[in-house]
Order: sequence, then C-alpha cells, then structure tokens
Amino acid sequence: MLNSETNEERASAEKKIAAQKSAPKTEGSNGRIFGLSALPNMPWEDKPAGCTRPIWRYSANPVIDRNPLPNVARAFNSAVIPYGGGYVGVFRMDHHNCMPHLHFGTSPDALNWTFNEEPIQFVDEDGRPMPKAEFTYDPRVLEIDGIYYISWCNEFPGTMSPTIGLAMTEDFETFVQLENAFLPFNRNGVLFPRKINGEFVMLNRPSDNGHTPFGDIYLSHSKDLIYWGKHRLVMKRGAGGWWENTKIGPGPVPIETSEGWLVIYHAVSNTCNGLIYSMSTVLLDRDDPAKVLYRANQPMLSPEAPYETTGFTPNVIFPCATLCDADTGRLAIYCGAADTFTSLAFGNVYDLIAWTKANSDG
Amino acid sequence: MLNSETNEERASAEKKIAAQKSAPKTEGSNGRIFGLSALPNMPWEDKPAGCTRPIWRYSANPVIDRNPLPNVARAFNSAVIPYGGGYVGVFRMDHHNCMPHLHFGTSPDALNWTFNEEPIQFVDEDGRPMPKAEFTYDPRVLEIDGIYYISWCNEFPGTMSPTIGLAMTEDFETFVQLENAFLPFNRNGVLFPRKINGEFVMLNRPSDNGHTPFGDIYLSHSKDLIYWGKHRLVMKRGAGGWWENTKIGPGPVPIETSEGWLVIYHAVSNTCNGLIYSMSTVLLDRDDPAKVLYRANQPMLSPEAPYETTGFTPNVIFPCATLCDADTGRLAIYCGAADTFTSLAFGNVYDLIAWTKANSDG
Repeated sequence: MLNSETNEERASAEKKIAAQKSAPKTEGSNGRIFGLSALPNMPWEDKPAGCTRPIWRYSANPVIDRNPLPNVARAFNSAVIPYGGGYVGVFRMDHHNCMPHLHFGTSPDALNWTFNEEPIQFVDEDGRPMPKAEFTYDPRVLEIDGIYYISWCNEFPGTMSPTIGLAMTEDFETFVQLENAFLPFNRNGVLFPRKINGEFVMLNRPSDNGHTPFGDIYLSHSKDLIYWGKHRLVMKRGAGGWWENTKIGPGPVPIETSEGWLVIYHAVSNTCNGLIYSMSTVLLDRDDPAKVLYRANQPMLSPEAPYETTGFTPNVIFPCATLCDADTGRLAIYCGAADTFTSLAFGNVYDLIAWTKANSDG
Repeated sequence: MLNSETNEERASAEKKIAAQKSAPKTEGSNGRIFGLSALPNMPWEDKPAGCTRPIWRYSANPVIDRNPLPNVARAFNSAVIPYGGGYVGVFRMDHHNCMPHLHFGTSPDALNWTFNEEPIQFVDEDGRPMPKAEFTYDPRVLEIDGIYYISWCNEFPGTMSPTIGLAMTEDFETFVQLENAFLPFNRNGVLFPRKINGEFVMLNRPSDNGHTPFGDIYLSHSKDLIYWGKHRLVMKRGAGGWWENTKIGPGPVPIETSEGWLVIYHAVSNTCNGLIYSMSTVLLDRDDPAKVLYRANQPMLSPEAPYETTGFTPNVIFPCATLCDADTGRLAIYCGAADTFTSLAFGNVYDLIAWTKANSDG
C-alpha cells in the first residue's frame, strides 16, 4: 500500500533517461543540456560590453507593453514554448477590472505576438466547458512525452483562494483541465519537464490567502497528475541574505543539465515601502530534486530598469518561462516586470551553471 | 490516466456498505447509526433537569486536570477509542516547555487514564524510528477494516510548519508513520471511518503558519493514504453568524447515520480580546460528503464553565473524539478545554440529528 509505483513506470522512466543520455548533445565547459533541442531562431542579443552580471536585459524591452488588447490592461508573468516551427504562449492578462485571466497567443519569433481576445476556455475530459474561475494567473507551460501541460495559480472553486490548476493539450486548441493539484493555499506550481523515478514532480510554494509574508520552495510527487503526495522541502527563504528573506518561489520550468536541474526562482525582500522581487538560480540533484547542490548567494537580476521599478507593482521581476538553444546554451528568460510588462533577459546555461557554483556558499 | 480507481476497490467498498446496511441496527426517531457497536460501559450521565441545550457537560469535569504526568503540564485536544474491552487514547500533551507531543494512554472506563511518560515513537515501514517532529498535536483516532489510524497536526520536517501527519497501528504498540498527507499549512485532518466510493476521505482545514485568522472545511481523497487529490470545499466560515465568522474546522471522526454523516466541528469567533472556540454540528451526504445537508445555525456548546473560560488559552472548547453507544445513540464528546484540560460533554446522536435539522437555515 505504501509504494504503489509500478515496475512499468520505473522501466519507462529509466528508458527515457537512457534515451536522453544517448542522444546527441553539445558539451559546454560547464556541463551538458538534456531534453531540449536546438532553437537557432529564438530571440537573442549578445552580452553588452561592460556587463558584469550573469544575465542582461533585452535592449528592446519591454516586449509586451501596456494595453496589449482592447480588453486587457497588462500582460506579464507569462509562459512561451516552441511549437510548430514558431512559438505559442499562455499569457497572464489582467483585464481592466484587475482580474487576471489566461490568454493564448502565437508568434513566429517569440517577440511579436498575436493574442486571442477571449481567455482560454478549459474543458473537462468529455469536452464540456469548465466553469470559469474568478482568477487564473502566472502560467507555466511544458511538454512531456508529446503532451503539453499548463500549470497556473487557479482559484479554488467558490473560495477566491489560490491553488495550482493543471491542464493538458496536444494542439493548443483544446485545453483539458485536470483536478487542482493541491488544497489552498499555493501560488506557484512548476512541473519538471520529465518524470523522475516514474513520477511527475512539481515545485511549488505554499502560501496564505493574501500578500503572503512568507514562502519556501517545496516539491510534490504524483503518478497521475490527480493525486499528489510525498511532499518535500527543497529550500527555505533567507539562507542567502536579505534579498530573499521574505519568500522564494519556483520560476520557469527547470532545465536539465549534467550538473543538475538549473532552476531559476524568484526571491523577495521586504522594505518599509513594499516587496522587492529579484531572481536567482539553484542547481538541484537530477535524481532527487529535493536535494540542493548549489544555490546562489545573491540575485542574478534585481529591479533596476524603468519597466521593472515602475508599474502597478513597482520593483518586481518575476520569471515564468525560458527558451533555450541546446546547441549553444543560449537562454532567453521571459519575466513579468512590475506586474505590468513582459520583458526579456538573456544569458547562457553554461555560464549560469558556473556562476551558480561560483556564488554558492554551500 | 484521469481515473485510476480499480474495480476491486469499488467492489470492496460496495461490499462493505452492503454489509453495513444488512447489519443489525437500532432505529431511533431520527435515523439509524452505521458502523458502530453497542458500548454500554462508556461514560455517561443523564441530561440534567432544566438543561435547554442539545448537549450537557459532565458534572465531574475536567476529566484530565493540569500536570497529568511529571513531564507534562497540560493534556487536551485528545482522542479516545474502544479497544480490547476497555479504551485507549492518543493524547496531546504539552510539556513544560510548551511543546506538544502525542502520548499513548489506556483506561478501563475512558475516565481514569494511565499515560505513557514518553511520547509515542513512530517507526517507518521497516520498523526504524522516525525522526522526532518538533511538535505533534490534536490527534484523531479511528478504525477502518481492523486497522487503527491516527491523524494529527504534524510539523513538516525541518520547517516548524503544520501539516497533517498519519500513522497506522494494529496493536497500539507499534505505530507506523506514513507520509504527511499535505503540503503546509493544515492543522485539522479527520478521516471518515470507512472508504467512500473506494477511497479514503479526509476532512481538513487549510491554514497559515500562525494563529490563522481564517479557516474553512475542505475534504480530500486518497486511494492509498499517500497521494491525495480531488480536493473539495465542504463549508465556509461565517454562514451561520458571528459565532463562526473567523474559522471552522472538523472535530471528531464523523458518525455515519441514515440521515448523513454527523460531523461535530469547532467554530471560532473573534473579539477584541481574543478568539472564542465553540462547537456545533453539520450533516453531510453519505455518498458525497462534500455536500452539506443540514448545518446548525448556532453553537451547541460555547465556553461557559471555569475550565473552559480560564486556562492557557481562555474560552476554548475543542472537540477531538466521541464515544457512541450504537444501541441507544448515547454520545460522549471529548473536548479540549482552554488548551489546558480535557472535558466531557454528553448528548444523543438522534437528538443531535433532530437538533441540527431543526436549527438549519439551509
């Protein structure tokens, strides 16, 4: 009763890992990238001269400005993924009444987007429309074995309380909503891009019902994306200094490398005039991602640019997605900025691995 | 993938329900009791003359006074159950340093207890001692198919945050601890005393990490007591008035009757000088206990007695267990009082069903 994992599931997972290990890969000075493909047409801009930080801002930021649709005031904290030779995205869009909803978008270059005016209408397994949640926000999107999954902060029905919603799609036309993963209260659910030891694994951040003054990163396991258990603490806030002493939470979908899962996370400091959202990196063990290998002792990016320091929620950088070219390690990080704009930062996976190791106290 | 419930599990559950339906039962004026046996030796005292409330206090309260053990200052919010012709219990015992731990106790009459001085040492499935949690409190105990289960508020390892711990025992000598049911934060986990539609079902109350200023009652499903899902809202605070406008949470193990699951719950009001914990009743649908049939619009008992109004936390009645004589419907409710004492209240299941229906606004 205590261990219902089947041998088939283990075998399937191990087979996939073996396939990944034997697939062609590019070897950098700081490891290899697994599970991702070449993406030569992704947005990119070289590191500017004089930049001393591990990542740098896109010179044309923000990539999504205010009022991107007639019915939408702000689009931020959103997810993009390669699809069909171009890109698709699931966007957090705050309508003029401040309520956030998930909108679908397409782009040839991951920079210029065409958005659907209506929010995504999720359906149940039989194709019937699901009741609309009062709010849906901060989506992440990933692909596992040919199926695309979306996780987001979802209203637990009838409660105005946050939990983690889940849906799957094969074509980005029909979005089948699954059970909410957790009880309230939880705001950041980020799946790993493959099963680990035969199970889906989700990073998440338990919270309360308000502007939560605390938050640590946990992970949870599931065999079927319906029932979740074996919850584990991954990392607590505050270990690295004041910049992360209020709360931390998982950001984009983790990137698997030979040096561990590269996880970009948001980290929050408190001041007398409000919260500051920065972002940084941690490397988690590939087989047991509850185990921290290296954790940066400083943010890799803090709010400085005008679109980060000024907006509906000043001083917020909130990463929700990355694009990565496995051939070069080039990385584009999609960030919400000031809960108002969408911006891009660039870096390189191998450089971030080296930077994380070099700036880890552990 | 979305419905992995096996036919065997369904068949087993249905068989058990059928067996219950055909078992001898006592019929009262307000229904029948299922799943419980005659218990003629349980504590009892007739309703005093002039009592106008549906339940009444034991005249010899409190049944457990301060300093019940040399190392224990207070015992309250505890669970008792018939076992081996007498009674056993799992007690919340606050040591002198205020940290709560679970202690085992035995009694011939469920009134006079012999306690173990050492807290319960849980073991893993292989019999190895589990690491000690910083705190364990507010246990519930029940039996399903010959196995006894304990649920309690457990420290999520290494976090000082509350979640729901689970353990099972067949002999009250070896206590095998299972996975924590949920992520933080949750303080009240109460299992139903049989599987429903083939699944374990647990009432619970999501919370935050402090003296939570909110709380509603949810329920969650599990096939194996490891992975939990299909979470549902059962009832929100405040529906019946100020006496329950801060938070509500499940109390003792539900009692199955022909009129629904009789659930006793705690309900909290706020004042300028602190919280007031009362208790009341709700009847939930037998097959779908997320559905409320009748919900009392007032407390059935609020703090009035000196041991309820005075103690470490004044004005608290916190029910965690019942004993019930299925032949007569007699009910003994074990309550924590003022986070200091253990007290008893008496009533009758059939009368409580009638009272709940008569005082329901729904």
